Amino acid sequence: MKERVTTFVEEIGQKVIAYRRDFHKYPEVGFTEFRTASKIARRLTELGFDVKLGRDVVKSEDRMGLPSEEELEYHYNRALEQGADKEFIKPLKDGFTGVVGTLNLGNGPVVALRFDIDALKVNEHSGEEHFPTKLGFSSINKGVMHACGHDCHAAIGIGVAEVLAHFKEEIEGPGKIKLIFQPAEEGVRGAKAIVGAGILDDVDYVIGGHMMAMKSGILICGENGFMATTKFDISYKGLSSHAGGAPNEGKNAMLAACTAVLNLNSISRHKEGASRINVGTLVSGTDRNVIPEDSLMKVEIRGETNEINEYLEEYALRIIENSAKMHNVDYNVRYMGAAPSGVCSDELVNRVKKIGNELGCFDKIIETSEGASGSEDYVYMMNKVQKHGGKGVYFIVGTDSKAGHHNSLFDVKEDDLIKAVNTYVLLVLDIIKKPY
Amino acid sequence: MKERVTTFVEEIGQKVIAYRRDFHKYPEVGFTEFRTASKIARRLTELGFDVKLGRDVVKSEDRMGLPSEEELEYHYNRALEQGADKEFIKPLKDGFTGVVGTLNLGNGPVVALRFDIDALKVNEHSGEEHFPTKLGFSSINKGVMHACGHDCHAAIGIGVAEVLAHFKEEIEGPGKIKLIFQPAEEGVRGAKAIVGAGILDDVDYVIGGHMMAMKSGILICGENGFMATTKFDISYKGLSSHAGGAPNEGKNAMLAACTAVLNLNSISRHKEGASRINVGTLVSGTDRNVIPEDSLMKVEIRGETNEINEYLEEYALRIIENSAKMHNVDYNVRYMGAAPSGVCSDELVNRVKKIGNELGCFDKIIETSEGASGSEDYVYMMNKVQKHGGKGVYFIVGTDSKAGHHNSLFDVKEDDLIKAVNTYVLLVLDIIKKPY
Amino acid sequence: MKERVTTFVEEIGQKVIAYRRDFHKYPEVGFTEFRTASKIARRLTELGFDVKLGRDVVKSEDRMGLPSEEELEYHYNRALEQGADKEFIKPLKDGFTGVVGTLNLGNGPVVALRFDIDALKVNEHSGEEHFPTKLGFSSINKGVMHACGHDCHAAIGIGVAEVLAHFKEEIEGPGKIKLIFQPAEEGVRGAKAIVGAGILDDVDYVIGGHMMAMKSGILICGENGFMATTKFDISYKGLSSHAGGAPNEGKNAMLAACTAVLNLNSISRHKEGASRINVGTLVSGTDRNVIPEDSLMKVEIRGETNEINEYLEEYALRIIENSAKMHNVDYNVRYMGAAPSGVCSDELVNRVKKIGNELGCFDKIIETSEGASGSEDYVYMMNKVQKHGGKGVYFIVGTDSKAGHHNSLFDVKEDDLIKAVNTYVLLVLDIIKKPY
Amino acid sequence: MKERVTTFVEEIGQKVIAYRRDFHKYPEVGFTEFRTASKIARRLTELGFDVKLGRDVVKSEDRMGLPSEEELEYHYNRALEQGADKEFIKPLKDGFTGVVGTLNLGNGPVVALRFDIDALKVNEHSGEEHFPTKLGFSSINKGVMHACGHDCHAAIGIGVAEVLAHFKEEIEGPGKIKLIFQPAEEGVRGAKAIVGAGILDDVDYVIGGHMMAMKSGILICGENGFMATTKFDISYKGLSSHAGGAPNEGKNAMLAACTAVLNLNSISRHKEGASRINVGTLVSGTDRNVIPEDSLMKVEIRGETNEINEYLEEYALRIIENSAKMHNVDYNVRYMGAAPSGVCSDELVNRVKKIGNELGCFDKIIETSEGASGSEDYVYMMNKVQKHGGKGVYFIVGTDSKAGHHNSLFDVKEDDLIKAVNTYVLLVLDIIKKPY
Repeated sequence: MKERVTTFVEEIGQKVIAYRRDFHKYPEVGFTEFRTASKIARRLTELGFDVKLGRDVVKSEDRMGLPSEEELEYHYNRALEQGADKEFIKPLKDGFTGVVGTLNLGNGPVVALRFDIDALKVNEHSGEEHFPTKLGFSSINKGVMHACGHDCHAAIGIGVAEVLAHFKEEIEGPGKIKLIFQPAEEGVRGAKAIVGAGILDDVDYVIGGHMMAMKSGILICGENGFMATTKFDISYKGLSSHAGGAPNEGKNAMLAACTAVLNLNSISRHKEGASRINVGTLVSGTDRNVIPEDSLMKVEIRGETNEINEYLEEYALRIIENSAKMHNVDYNVRYMGAAPSGVCSDELVNRVKKIGNELGCFDKIIETSEGASGSEDYVYMMNKVQKHGGKGVYFIVGTDSKAGHHNSLFDVKEDDLIKAVNTYVLLVLDIIKKPY
Repeated sequence: MKERVTTFVEEIGQKVIAYRRDFHKYPEVGFTEFRTASKIARRLTELGFDVKLGRDVVKSEDRMGLPSEEELEYHYNRALEQGADKEFIKPLKDGFTGVVGTLNLGNGPVVALRFDIDALKVNEHSGEEHFPTKLGFSSINKGVMHACGHDCHAAIGIGVAEVLAHFKEEIEGPGKIKLIFQPAEEGVRGAKAIVGAGILDDVDYVIGGHMMAMKSGILICGENGFMATTKFDISYKGLSSHAGGAPNEGKNAMLAACTAVLNLNSISRHKEGASRINVGTLVSGTDRNVIPEDSLMKVEIRGETNEINEYLEEYALRIIENSAKMHNVDYNVRYMGAAPSGVCSDELVNRVKKIGNELGCFDKIIETSEGASGSEDYVYMMNKVQKHGGKGVYFIVGTDSKAGHHNSLFDVKEDDLIKAVNTYVLLVLDIIKKPY
Repeated sequence: MKERVTTFVEEIGQKVIAYRRDFHKYPEVGFTEFRTASKIARRLTELGFDVKLGRDVVKSEDRMGLPSEEELEYHYNRALEQGADKEFIKPLKDGFTGVVGTLNLGNGPVVALRFDIDALKVNEHSGEEHFPTKLGFSSINKGVMHACGHDCHAAIGIGVAEVLAHFKEEIEGPGKIKLIFQPAEEGVRGAKAIVGAGILDDVDYVIGGHMMAMKSGILICGENGFMATTKFDISYKGLSSHAGGAPNEGKNAMLAACTAVLNLNSISRHKEGASRINVGTLVSGTDRNVIPEDSLMKVEIRGETNEINEYLEEYALRIIENSAKMHNVDYNVRYMGAAPSGVCSDELVNRVKKIGNELGCFDKIIETSEGASGSEDYVYMMNKVQKHGGKGVYFIVGTDSKAGHHNSLFDVKEDDLIKAVNTYVLLVLDIIKKPY
Repeated sequence: MKERVTTFVEEIGQKVIAYRRDFHKYPEVGFTEFRTASKIARRLTELGFDVKLGRDVVKSEDRMGLPSEEELEYHYNRALEQGADKEFIKPLKDGFTGVVGTLNLGNGPVVALRFDIDALKVNEHSGEEHFPTKLGFSSINKGVMHACGHDCHAAIGIGVAEVLAHFKEEIEGPGKIKLIFQPAEEGVRGAKAIVGAGILDDVDYVIGGHMMAMKSGILICGENGFMATTKFDISYKGLSSHAGGAPNEGKNAMLAACTAVLNLNSISRHKEGASRINVGTLVSGTDRNVIPEDSLMKVEIRGETNEINEYLEEYALRIIENSAKMHNVDYNVRYMGAAPSGVCSDELVNRVKKIGNELGCFDKIIETSEGASGSEDYVYMMNKVQKHGGKGVYFIVGTDSKAGHHNSLFDVKEDDLIKAVNTYVLLVLDIIKKPY
């Protein structure tokens, strides 16, 4: 059957690429993927998947870094203008842009695949040397671009759905396959809300992956290098007064913030491994001769392990709170994103390796890597599944690109989408057939 | 002659008020008083004054807090559209908006009067309870308003010119009278450039004054309470880098700024009297996950005496420089305004008092006051004249106002302009007649 | 009677001076004045005063900056060896070294006089040019010296007692006279405990004074320049850990202290007048490679008014508390001294002036002064009396000295003690005779 | 011959142990090892080594953290009283306590062995459960103890000398063997001065080692985990003034220090690996009411690589300098210790492994370890030799101990000294016989 699968994938290859180009042309940032998600929901339904979406798969209060109501409204309407599915868009309103399609093959192991679908605030390159521009499918939404390959991920997810639907009757089950299309991976804001909605509660195996600008032909079977991270916005609210006439009547929110900045940067290194802390922006005060009454800070922490990240977070919050109280100033902490660290399950890493070898389309297969250095909120899902005894993996499919991720010239070699579809599908079939 | 003067002032009262309303309707902020100054120059010329303006009376490099070239250009063109004098506006171009008119009555004591002419960035109140709105002469330049009475000062100055021109032949000279119309008093930015141009070099007596929202009928003969002040904008320029991937490669301009803020606020009190220091605004950084590469701070210091202010300035600059160097960051200090403290000459205070009493239009005459608590760059002129043996004074004419200075409802009782014109003129005549 | 008083004072002059020299030779620092106070109590008793001492006049918990138990014990024993009164020393044990002698002349106005009796931690000059050394009455207690004239104050107090006892029958009462001998004025630590014990509760007039190294012959009738002040010791207790091996396991008490220091120095100026804040000493940490686990700071604040001092104190405590909590560190605040600001009652200032003039022994009489710039815990007593409708005054008797206060060469012209005794006695008689 | 060596080592085993106990009983801290070094020099001379010592092997200005002249003098005299060699102690005077003994077997490879000889400021445990106490050879120098095994290292070095001298004629040379006895390893203060004196200039192979409290029978062939480190003492010198009367006249050395502390702790993490920075102690100020005029800080930095350590050092010095200048305060940096990081040469690691296996006395042989986490100034020697093309290694011989290093109960299993002597000797013979 393996060969029949790869042959079929080859056949639908242009369809997958067409999906990719469509998503690329209409990029939508986190929690505004109204058009993208509605189209995915439509296709999964057509293919016979049991589809849940909106509030059923996205827990409201677990969403982080949600855009303002005005932005959500604006993007919702734009999606409608740009061809969103009029029926399926409705449950997505107000930033509930997740979709989960399930194929039920009877009681058995539950395998979940995760595909992230959001774009970035990047202006796409407009020169002809950029393939999407040359072929006319570059972003028409100014300032927004699929510069991290999530357009591919969404398309690959639909491709996987097409294959599974096609071979549905033949799959040696029993079991259940969940295709999770997650909003707002950028800024690590969306996965927690999917987990919060219980989507991973019954999952035995969870699989994630990423197209990576490194070199076409590389397969990294298990990425273990993601750092845990938390991102928060801090606001301080003091009291203004005239700096000359009544300086003591003010409550100085700039002193609070500057004390916080120095102390946040002073948080001790952790013996267990790497840590990071950054106050990326600080805006404070209204005018030269006024005691500053407010401050806004964007803060980010990272830890090589969850323990380190928790240490940083606890310490940071203590600094933030007490630098406010010290100056009699109110403060507010708003979580804007978070992701844990995690380690792929050996058994799944080995299966990815086996399948990669069997596929024969990869030049270089690397077992595991610690090299990520960034963060991925997929790890929430993997941790969740592993915590109740299941297994998880995150593999990386290399591709050629003129430029790195988040760059206006980022692109992929579209053939590599086929490799990814094959890897996902064969991995699922392998697990369903012989769980352990 | 005193009676004839007051009678004449009464006659031209409506003219003075008309000037005030015209200036009020077309307010222009510091160094953009193109329309205002050109009209003043025109009228002084018509009245027979020897008029100098532009670069002849404003030293380029001594101007502080100059608007950008674009802003200067924009306001220049707007002034032309709003009826500026086409001839006299030319020398004012690029922010040289000072005018000095001299009446030469032969070799003798030189008396200078200073009138400031700029408006504020305040939105004028649009309700009918606001007199200028009701009468239709409120600001047509959105976001700009004569909310500190400099429209009155400019009108008073022209009124004084009218009177002096009228009685020119009768004045018991000899002597010289200089009417100085100064730009950019708000933010204490313009007086230094007038002094820098040498306008005060030959002056024996200098007189300044202010309409003050306190109560109509009050005359304060000498205001001694002005604090010395210096205002500067600080910019730090470091180097950005990825906060997760290469934090050590950045040069953190936010740490530099926060270190500066805490240490600036920590500058010791001065044993000789009151001091103030404020960092009013701080803006730093570009994004959450980027080591902040730049910071901008608006700083202001004030001292009860010039010595205290100099102590603060020297210390502040040391902090600013070394907090930058500490973090390997470049820095730039841009002076945005400055004014010294000073004490009125007793002899002139006494003359103001005598004239106030003789005029009979003031209910309450106060000899000197320490109550100002703000700053006035006029003091540059007074210090300059006193340093070479001359005398100076700054008196205050109370007026009724619904609201305080810099408020959108600030207004004056227009009758009080007449009192001010009388006081200036009689003081000048008194000095010219009997210098000491 | 005035003349008979001054004659009598002249007669007992050598006795007063002998007391001064005895106290000078055996100086005792705050709360260890066991010998001094026991001798005072003995003499007051002999003179017929109703004497209270120890816990009856010193409220235990209101004492600030109390020496350690070991020090108290050591000085108690030394006092016994140095001739303390064996009976009267007993109630003074453990640092209750206050004495109050009352002369009851029947129901009438209550007049209290305050004399402070403690010495300083200063090494007395041992050269012959120093009068006490030359005459052999310089300190035999190494490192302790009466370098602020409280030996004189104690002697003057006894002198006043001698006179009042002598003329007891003739005083035109009725009324009550309280002589308060207060411990621990240095560091402003003792007066609060006298007030706390209720000694001032029934007082209608309270009088304090000081010998001042300025010039013999000066009398300042009312000193109004004392700043309010609070002094506290701050300790932080964190947790040590190895700086290389486990830095995150420490709780860094040095970061807490340094954050406190920078922020304490950053407390805003007060619009109402002068303020001061100083962290005078900071000791933190145990070894180079250990995360610092403790910090000790000596802090002092001063305000031109009580309101300013309270503003500083409240703000300072907030900084101290939250800089500790920020770093998860415990903290402790120990009050080490405090004094309010205050203003002498005009009526008493005038009486001092009148008496000074009548006495004829003063060359230069100054009504009031703002020049003190230091602090005096006597003001607690004056505030207390004024609060319930009474009156208070603090006058200064100038004297010649080779060096200023707190200097190892400080001395007085002993004749000036006579002037002080006269002033106190005549003031008391004047008040008792004609209260208002 | 290998067997004859091990047999001979067995024979002299008690002699080696006797040396160890003697050194243990008379411990001497860094740069005061007058008795220890003089005895070593005496024995090496007796054994026929060419001995250099004092200034010939210790470069004066490269010594770091030298004790005061008084301390050096005191310990020199104590050493004489405690049986130091009267002849060889002389060149060691003033803290030049290094000894190098050379065995010249003709032109050939130069092999250097390094033994550190200093003790620690630790109070030795006095209970019978502590073996040295039980046997009566615990420290008689109160507060000083060989709690890190350098007594063993010194004894091992003499043991090696005994063996080499015994077999001198039979060694298959040619070559040269240098035995380096280094002072002041604790605090990483002495090795730089040995290198500075040129002792390593002609060395082709350098070998160091340590007895480690882990478990008897372990051999780690190459330790690569030492962190680079620099230790410095910082002093700030400002100007005192009265905190109430003239606060602006002071130059506040506490503000300088606190600014330094916060910023030193804020130095960014390094992308290449672990870093540490600690201000371990801070002492500042003289009295509560005095602007603090001085500060002293003990600072320590560590980096996983030399590059990281240099980054920290450069940044730290910039902070220290500019926090001083910011407050117009002088500063001084005194280097108190330093050591680089380094990597053992593979070839030597392999030889240690081979010899360890051949010896048969080790249960567990580990090739290389990264686990050190501390620092060793031996690495200066290894870096020096490797830089000119030579090779170096540092091996670890495990031993049983009731407590860890630097603990008052630290001890070794004395049999393990024999293992170490064997390993050193056989390694030297192996290299001399077959250099590569």
